[in-house]
Amino acid sequence: MSDLASFFGIDNPEGLGPAVVVCEHASNHFPPPWDKPGLSDAQLVSHIAWDPGALEVARGLARALHAPLVHAKASRLIFDLNRPPHSPAAMTERSEAHAIPFNLQLSRSERRSRTQAHYIPFHAALADLLARRLARGLTTALITVHSFTPVYFGKPREVEFGLIHDSDARLAKAIAQRDIGLLTRLNEPYSAADGVTHTLARHATPFGLPHAMLEIRNDLIADEKAQTAMVARLAPVIRSAIDEVA
Amino acid sequence: MSDLASFFGIDNPEGLGPAVVVCEHASNHFPPPWDKPGLSDAQLVSHIAWDPGALEVARGLARALHAPLVHAKASRLIFDLNRPPHSPAAMTERSEAHAIPFNLQLSRSERRSRTQAHYIPFHAALADLLARRLARGLTTALITVHSFTPVYFGKPREVEFGLIHDSDARLAKAIAQRDIGLLTRLNEPYSAADGVTHTLARHATPFGLPHAMLEIRNDLIADEKAQTAMVARLAPVIRSAIDEVA
Repeated sequence: MSDLASFFGIDNPEGLGPAVVVCEHASNHFPPPWDKPGLSDAQLVSHIAWDPGALEVARGLARALHAPLVHAKASRLIFDLNRPPHSPAAMTERSEAHAIPFNLQLSRSERRSRTQAHYIPFHAALADLLARRLARGLTTALITVHSFTPVYFGKPREVEFGLIHDSDARLAKAIAQRDIGLLTRLNEPYSAADGVTHTLARHATPFGLPHAMLEIRNDLIADEKAQTAMVARLAPVIRSAIDEVA
Repeated sequence: MSDLASFFGIDNPEGLGPAVVVCEHASNHFPPPWDKPGLSDAQLVSHIAWDPGALEVARGLARALHAPLVHAKASRLIFDLNRPPHSPAAMTERSEAHAIPFNLQLSRSERRSRTQAHYIPFHAALADLLARRLARGLTTALITVHSFTPVYFGKPREVEFGLIHDSDARLAKAIAQRDIGLLTRLNEPYSAADGVTHTLARHATPFGLPHAMLEIRNDLIADEKAQTAMVARLAPVIRSAIDEVA
């Protein structure tokens, strides 16, 4: 825990494009002292540990938009950076049907330790980056990139691309209204009512920034070729939607 | 600018009471290199430079609630910490009828410098304090303390005590409904629509924390005796309102 920065990374921090991209669930890494999660190999590569494919798409979008990217370097099961520290979902005891052994009955001291090592520095870095951009007068939309599992609690999900917003729907709607070539839905498979917009509520809404949380069905970004194609599909759409609302 | 902490202070950081108190406009100090604001002595002690009396009331409330207090140590005219960095009001060119000479036509570099020295560390410290409390499971209401001038643009203000909220009105209403002995109004003399709830929007709403911005007419807290009396009046009311909603 001596090098806090090792639990998140910032690509292209000086990017002057009209967005900041965030990927809270980018990693299925379990760094020490959290390296014994007690999960199977299958669980460790599944959506319960991270959002498969999301980092590669986030990287591609950030490059295409000339935007900074802030991304996690540790599993969401250690701390879900898109949840506040007092939420049961921040260090969840269950994910879908899976019990998470190393999160059961956590002590207050362990909750504080993870909050200080993961949550606080990640959000402080994002807040700092955004404040510096705003002070410079740079147009800034906040885009968070997630993926979701095609089958949840045994039920297939039809939606391919979800756009979720906090209190300002403009950018999410502007993206959804474009010709994307995916089965696209607003506020599916989740919405702000499910508590999934913490990053947007902290970093976009108080600043009046246009924002959207992208949710991509993870079977559509399962390998490098598919990820590259998804970036090529989404980047121009997002770019033009930002130009429309920002 | 080498000692960033000198532009804000935290009293009682380990206070375990059910609130965190914030006073963004606590100071009319102009530290170097911002020590030549080009204002008269009368302007420097007036509401345009700070919220007179607010720090003393905030200190008294924090003591009564056993709560931490985060307060500014530099004038709001250098940076209004209750505004985002891209807001014209953050480094305002005018306050009420007064031109603020040292804020006219600021360079981007000066805007960045003030943002980095004042805004970013103040809000990072508040975010850090709140996250640690939430990780510990401490009940936390966010209370910001302000004062307003009895005469604004030549017009007397009748209201004595205003309660302003961001998206969650519970605590503000619970306070307003109690027997305070002041002419009390909800969302007067300002409201969220005037852009005055930035601190609440950043630090309370994304965490679901009960919150209220207190606005006290500054002629009612003009000296130590009046400030002490105001604290004695407000502290039990706020305490019981927090107990009701938190």
